[in-house]
Amino acid sequence: MRKVAVIGVGLTKFGELWDVSFRRMMLEAGGRAIEDAGIDGGRIDAMYVGNMSAGQFIRQEHIASLIADHAGLIPVPCTRVEAACASGGLAFRQAVIAVASGIHDIVVAAGIEKMTDVLAEQATEALATAADQEWEAYVGATFPGVYALMARRHMYEFGTTEEQLARVAVKNHHNACFNPCAQYQTEITVEDVLNSSPVCSPLRLLDCSPITDGAACAILAPADLARKITDTQILVAGVGQASDTISLHDRQTLTGLPATTKAAEIAYKMAEVGVRDIDLAEVHDCFTISEIMAIEDLGFCKKGEGGKLTEQGETAIGGSIPVNTSGGLKGKGHPVGATGVAQVVEVVQQLRGEAGKRQVDGAEIGLTHNVGGSGGTVVVHVLRRGG
Amino acid sequence: MRKVAVIGVGLTKFGELWDVSFRRMMLEAGGRAIEDAGIDGGRIDAMYVGNMSAGQFIRQEHIASLIADHAGLIPVPCTRVEAACASGGLAFRQAVIAVASGIHDIVVAAGIEKMTDVLAEQATEALATAADQEWEAYVGATFPGVYALMARRHMYEFGTTEEQLARVAVKNHHNACFNPCAQYQTEITVEDVLNSSPVCSPLRLLDCSPITDGAACAILAPADLARKITDTQILVAGVGQASDTISLHDRQTLTGLPATTKAAEIAYKMAEVGVRDIDLAEVHDCFTISEIMAIEDLGFCKKGEGGKLTEQGETAIGGSIPVNTSGGLKGKGHPVGATGVAQVVEVVQQLRGEAGKRQVDGAEIGLTHNVGGSGGTVVVHVLRRGG
Repeated sequence: MRKVAVIGVGLTKFGELWDVSFRRMMLEAGGRAIEDAGIDGGRIDAMYVGNMSAGQFIRQEHIASLIADHAGLIPVPCTRVEAACASGGLAFRQAVIAVASGIHDIVVAAGIEKMTDVLAEQATEALATAADQEWEAYVGATFPGVYALMARRHMYEFGTTEEQLARVAVKNHHNACFNPCAQYQTEITVEDVLNSSPVCSPLRLLDCSPITDGAACAILAPADLARKITDTQILVAGVGQASDTISLHDRQTLTGLPATTKAAEIAYKMAEVGVRDIDLAEVHDCFTISEIMAIEDLGFCKKGEGGKLTEQGETAIGGSIPVNTSGGLKGKGHPVGATGVAQVVEVVQQLRGEAGKRQVDGAEIGLTHNVGGSGGTVVVHVLRRGG
Repeated sequence: MRKVAVIGVGLTKFGELWDVSFRRMMLEAGGRAIEDAGIDGGRIDAMYVGNMSAGQFIRQEHIASLIADHAGLIPVPCTRVEAACASGGLAFRQAVIAVASGIHDIVVAAGIEKMTDVLAEQATEALATAADQEWEAYVGATFPGVYALMARRHMYEFGTTEEQLARVAVKNHHNACFNPCAQYQTEITVEDVLNSSPVCSPLRLLDCSPITDGAACAILAPADLARKITDTQILVAGVGQASDTISLHDRQTLTGLPATTKAAEIAYKMAEVGVRDIDLAEVHDCFTISEIMAIEDLGFCKKGEGGKLTEQGETAIGGSIPVNTSGGLKGKGHPVGATGVAQVVEVVQQLRGEAGKRQVDGAEIGLTHNVGGSGGTVVVHVLRRGG
């Protein structure tokens, strides 16, 4: 397999973009990535796009064709991939495999979701189609409910506190203040979180990531070619993907996602790195408990100690393992199909030293962690600053 | 890139399967493919599944995780790909790239659609989300309408007749009589077609493929490994994919699909074959006009002569280029996400000499042609009987 590098990245503003259409969002993110790469768009050989449910959100399937059309990419092969909220991470992985195989050279990995064209309750209903319809969604277990079960069990087994959960949200909102693309560039306090409305106990409104419109884009090339195009090469060192039961009741554990552990194991091995080599991570904090479980499952601390690690400030910028420097899903926003690619955008900017006030000093190796549903699909990537 | 071979194939019965669930259909097709390959299911390294719109048809996204779960494939990476009715063809292409790249060895390419759990008008509405929402679907241009425009123009430019269109349906119903998995194992006559209800003039009910439940599965392996597993190797010689405008009004032509020509050009070149080397083809006859345009765009005859070629019987079994020996989408049925993989299943059975009463004598090289929407995505594969 050929070595693969990221040569350009781009993001739209994340938020409730009522005045921006689906197709325009994709062109914005794509245009920025092409400009960032400094290449002519005519050099693009293929595109993969992650999207969870344009069929339900904007009544449009076949979006890869729509994007190829509106981006002027015809007749380039364009393919949509979907795994709920892990759709973006999967699109990136497919793009990496396509370049690695040699079938294509310059390949776009994109992600997009337009979620605010429907009412909030319709969005919740659409998102619930990522859970097992017959065992979870039909009986009313939407995602806040499913993650609340995990949070409750985590608190019971390890003494994790609501305050520790709140600290995840506080940190990620703080980081988002330094990210011009973030949905919420506002500080919040632990009290704000603890006093916000209950959604599904113990999770409150400020424990939950928002409903967001947004698109993200990364452009990949074989490392040999990338060296000629960019000064700062960012290599894709490892890609890991794993599946698990789609519904929670069949799992051995409620306090972690086994698919995270498995996907990380694959990615670490392929990248030839250990967990201590990781300088920063963008993890899937769809709820505050998700970040706590993620940092444990990825190996940044022992199982059960994620709350404490957060409380000690170790996951803040300046801590031993900065997590969600972009603001994460909580602060930056969570346009579900775009999230996995947006995570890559953040890590690339960090490894290039272009993250401004949220820069992690001397970052050389970064990780992304993208979850579909309640952990039925997990994708982990390791990126490394090249020579 | 490594050479790739198909080592096993399986299909469910196609039809209105009101008593069979989505998850059971996938297990049936997968189980048959594993049995056909004669391997242990534990050897599977990854899965790609084509599905257009389980989100709209059965309110379930994240189906790759659902299938991984119910098929006992956990923690194997499973990925859904979508390009409307070309979803199956794309899933097969992704599986080929994954094996070719070396990242995985034994990879499943599957396709599935469960369309009859909603009312027929809801199915039509769901299918219309494969067209451009803003330029086509919102103004009422569903797919019969879009293809009727193409048919009318083809008749105007080349003198193609309604009887020639009807002959496509008659042939494909005839072939389907010899396919135990086909939805319609019944002969029809030209008169039956011409006397059937108009759907969108000049297309009548019997010019249209039906709404179908079904699943299809193919198992791929590197050619070196395949040689140890199977006696009759079927090599994937060429894979081609191309995109075009999602809506019809932006095209240079209404009488063919430029993406078919482009995808075929890529596949022929990769396979190092010419059109005359093709012994049989499964093409995307979602409407009778589609088959006529396909055989022209693929190069089996000159543009405008598809009607005549059909009338002369050259596309029948025993003709110079048998087309849709399986019964095609018209006779076998068209579970949209499964169709591209089902085409591969037919070609593999033909190249192995296992197609029974519909066998094409001495078939060595076969082609599949799978279309998304009105031609916004086209995938063409060339398969070859190995030594």
